[in-house]
Amino acid sequence: MNAIGLVAFALVGSAKAIRAEFDLFGVTVVGLVTAFAGGATRDVLVGRVPLALQNVGEVALGLLGVCLAVVLYAWLEAPDDRPITLYADAIGLAAFATAGAIVAIEIGLPAFGVVAIATINAVGGGAFADLLLDRSPFILFEDFYASCAVLGGSAYWLFTALAADATLAAAACATVTVGTRVLALSRGWTVPTAQRLEAVTGE
Amino acid sequence: MNAIGLVAFALVGSAKAIRAEFDLFGVTVVGLVTAFAGGATRDVLVGRVPLALQNVGEVALGLLGVCLAVVLYAWLEAPDDRPITLYADAIGLAAFATAGAIVAIEIGLPAFGVVAIATINAVGGGAFADLLLDRSPFILFEDFYASCAVLGGSAYWLFTALAADATLAAAACATVTVGTRVLALSRGWTVPTAQRLEAVTGE
Amino acid sequence: MNAIGLVAFALVGSAKAIRAEFDLFGVTVVGLVTAFAGGATRDVLVGRVPLALQNVGEVALGLLGVCLAVVLYAWLEAPDDRPITLYADAIGLAAFATAGAIVAIEIGLPAFGVVAIATINAVGGGAFADLLLDRSPFILFEDFYASCAVLGGSAYWLFTALAADATLAAAACATVTVGTRVLALSRGWTVPTAQRLEAVTGE
Repeated sequence: MNAIGLVAFALVGSAKAIRAEFDLFGVTVVGLVTAFAGGATRDVLVGRVPLALQNVGEVALGLLGVCLAVVLYAWLEAPDDRPITLYADAIGLAAFATAGAIVAIEIGLPAFGVVAIATINAVGGGAFADLLLDRSPFILFEDFYASCAVLGGSAYWLFTALAADATLAAAACATVTVGTRVLALSRGWTVPTAQRLEAVTGE
Repeated sequence: MNAIGLVAFALVGSAKAIRAEFDLFGVTVVGLVTAFAGGATRDVLVGRVPLALQNVGEVALGLLGVCLAVVLYAWLEAPDDRPITLYADAIGLAAFATAGAIVAIEIGLPAFGVVAIATINAVGGGAFADLLLDRSPFILFEDFYASCAVLGGSAYWLFTALAADATLAAAACATVTVGTRVLALSRGWTVPTAQRLEAVTGE
Repeated sequence: MNAIGLVAFALVGSAKAIRAEFDLFGVTVVGLVTAFAGGATRDVLVGRVPLALQNVGEVALGLLGVCLAVVLYAWLEAPDDRPITLYADAIGLAAFATAGAIVAIEIGLPAFGVVAIATINAVGGGAFADLLLDRSPFILFEDFYASCAVLGGSAYWLFTALAADATLAAAACATVTVGTRVLALSRGWTVPTAQRLEAVTGE
C-alpha cells in the first residue's frame, strides 16, 4: 500500500507541475514533495531524520511516479484525474495516515497528536506542493479528502485506547480512510463552509 | 495570558479562513495553525516535539477560538476586527514572544537567536496562516506588529544580560510587547518601506 | 566563500522584497530568510539547532547584505541583477551546496540524501523567500540554477564513494556548482519543460 501511495502521490504532484509549465527540475521537486513532504514533516515533528533521505527504494518509487506523469502526459489529458489514479491515491492516503498514527502512538502522543500526525503524514505533501504552485492547499476548501485521514487517525486512536492490538488498529485506520475516501469520490461529498452551515442552521 | 492568546489567535485565523470561503476543515486548520504553528516552529528549531501535539488543554483553547469565529461570524461582520479581539491578540503576541524568549535563553542562544525565536513564536503562526490563504504574510508589509515582538524579545535578552532574574525579564518582555502594540494600534504606526526611507533621507 | 554567499543571498532577497514594497522589517526578514533558511532547513532535517541562531558573525554578514540592498536601491535600478551580484550569488550557491553535502555525508546519508541536502542548503532559502513574496519559487520553472547544486552535490557524493578525501570532494562540489552556474549564466541555459521535451521527442 505504501508503494502504491508513493507512486500515485508523485504522479499526481508531477502532473500538476507539468500543467503549470514548471521545468523538469520543478516537476521532479513537486512530485517528490507530494510523495515525501508529509512523512518528512512527521519525522521532523517527532525529532527524527526523514526516512525519505535514507531510503533509496522509496525515492525510486517516487521517481517512478514522476516519470509516469511525464510519459503519460504525452498520451492523456490529465493522468492524475483518471479513476485508477484516484483509487491509487486513496490507497496512499490510507497508507500514509496509518504510518503517521503508528509513529504518533509510538512516541506517546494523546488523541489530538495522533490525529494531527496521521493527517499531516497523509496530506502534508499535497498541501506543500500546492504552496509551491502558488495556490492555497486544495484540502482546505474543496473535496472530502483530508477529513478521511482525520477519521482514519481517530479510528487508530480509538482502537488503541480500547486496548486493541496495533495490527487491528492499523487495519481499522486504513479501512476507514480508504472507505470514506471512496465514498466521498463516488458520492461527491464535500465539507460545508461556515457560510453554508449558517444558511442551513440560521433559517 | 497564554490562554487568552491561543483563543484570540485561533479566532483571528479562523475568521480570515471563513472570509476566504474555506470549508470547516480548512477553517479549523487555519485557526489552529495561527495559534500553534509559531510555537511548533520554535520547538522544531530547538529540537523538541511540539507541545501543542501533547497538550490537550491548549488544543481545546485553540478549538474554542475556532468555534467562536464560526458562531460570531453569523452575528458580526468581522469578529477579528473588534477592539476586544485586537487587544486579546496583543496579549497573545506578548505571551508568545515571552514564551519564545524563555526557551531561547534556556538553550543558551545569543541575542539574535533570542530575538528571532521570540518573534517566530509570536508571529510565525499568523505568517504561516497567510501562506495557506495564498497571500504574503501581512507582518512583512503593513502595520507595526512583528516589530513589537522584536522589541519585547530584545528587552528579555537585555534584562537577562544585565543579570536580572527570569521573572523580571519575562515581565519586561511582555510589557514592552503589549505596550508597543497598543500604542501602534491607537496611533496607527507602520514601519517605513525602503522607498519612503529614501524619499525622506535623500531629498 | 561562505561569507560572500551570505552577503550576496541576503542582498538578492532584500532587493526582491524592496521591489515588492515590503516594509523594512519585511525586507530584513526576506533577506535573512534567503541567506539562512536553506541552512536552517538542513539543520532541522538532520536534527540540529540551526547554526544561524547561534552564530553572531554569520547573522552580521546577512544584515550587511540587507543594508547593502537598501542603500544600493537608491542608486541602482536592480542591484540584484548586476554581474557582480550574479557571480557572488554563484559563489554562495557553491559554498552552500558544499556545506550541505558535508553535513549529509557526516550523518551517513546515501546518494539521494546527499544531493537533496546539498540542494536544499543551496536553494531552500531563495525558494522560501519566493513563497513569502507570494510567488512560486523561481527555481522550479526558469533558469538553470538549482540544477547546478544537484550536479555539485552529485559530484561530492561521487568523490566520496570513490574514497577521495573530504577536501577533494568539497573542491569538486564547489567547482562543479560554480562552473555550471557561470556557464548557465553566460549561455542562457534553461531546463526543458515536459511540454518541450515531448515536442522534441514526439515528432
